[in-house]
Amino acid sequence: MRLRNVKNAKEIVKNHPLVINEVVENTFPNKKAIHLEIGMGKGDFIINMSKKYPNINFVAIEKYESIIVKALEKIDKSDNLRIICMDAKNLNEIFNEKIEALYLNFSDPWPKKRHAKRRLTHPNFLNIFENLFKKEVNIFLKTDNKDLFAYSLVSLSNNGYQLIEVSLNLANSDISNVETEYEHKFSGKGETINYLHATKKI
Amino acid sequence: MRLRNVKNAKEIVKNHPLVINEVVENTFPNKKAIHLEIGMGKGDFIINMSKKYPNINFVAIEKYESIIVKALEKIDKSDNLRIICMDAKNLNEIFNEKIEALYLNFSDPWPKKRHAKRRLTHPNFLNIFENLFKKEVNIFLKTDNKDLFAYSLVSLSNNGYQLIEVSLNLANSDISNVETEYEHKFSGKGETINYLHATKKI
Repeated sequence: MRLRNVKNAKEIVKNHPLVINEVVENTFPNKKAIHLEIGMGKGDFIINMSKKYPNINFVAIEKYESIIVKALEKIDKSDNLRIICMDAKNLNEIFNEKIEALYLNFSDPWPKKRHAKRRLTHPNFLNIFENLFKKEVNIFLKTDNKDLFAYSLVSLSNNGYQLIEVSLNLANSDISNVETEYEHKFSGKGETINYLHATKKI
Repeated sequence: MRLRNVKNAKEIVKNHPLVINEVVENTFPNKKAIHLEIGMGKGDFIINMSKKYPNINFVAIEKYESIIVKALEKIDKSDNLRIICMDAKNLNEIFNEKIEALYLNFSDPWPKKRHAKRRLTHPNFLNIFENLFKKEVNIFLKTDNKDLFAYSLVSLSNNGYQLIEVSLNLANSDISNVETEYEHKFSGKGETINYLHATKKI
């Protein structure tokens, strides 16, 4: 995502009531299932998910304050959505509660082979993610990037995941879908969106 | 594939020295590995494979005599290629030798749900294919059909297969590729070809 520096972004994010530093027992007012999005971008997906599914608690992480500010402009308060400014590789340090689903939407494809370790479906990241779940890992991935999708299919397969659902043309499938802002811009340009749901018993 | 009736097709196929009825110990002059293609179409793939890999024995099956005739026009003799006119569902009855690789190229996608059982990656067909292998099943699939590809990924995953290699844009990958006649016509039209190699220990 193109980054524009936003004035006072650090301070706005730090002081916003929905932005937290860790996920603990009383992060949410109830004990409902927690779903996590890594790389929330401008937040359309997770904000709309939190409205569509009021019985699920959502946590979204994003690395850059300047992007989080854009998301925060769209919400003022929410019982079932919290945001953390952090890098995915440190997730295990701040999560004291277990999650039930993980969303990876239009993650950076890191196309160069020497950057493969930075892809969110690299085995190193899958290991981090698996620690966040209790019994069964559930990963939902969307991307327009064909190479990242192919890489992810092989990586998940080699790490013991089973494919529950796959589409190479999400908009044309009967899979229920909440769009990201990127996806919304993207649709109608003739490119297709790839989707997978993979699971693993742990 | 569009079918044109070819005069005397039945007789030409029946009498051609490369066309056989079953695969037995002395089908080939040597004991080298056998690779199988289901649905050879006009034969470009399997003919070029048999030339490129003289140390592998190839068997191709195809349901329609009128199509086999088109393939036979391109070859007169070959030590390492044999053709059988048959339906894939009867494979177990005529194969007395084990194979080491199976190619499914641009198979009929059978798009309607009620025809799912006819797709070559339906569990019923996977069961038939597995009987043809000794220790490890190796399936190589190519298709331009996004829905058949997505279906195949899920079906293989649910039937214990591991994905070794996947591409959603075969022409733009570094995967070694022998084109089918369909693929050759197809390339340059902007559509991409999906490819997978899946394996299973048995």
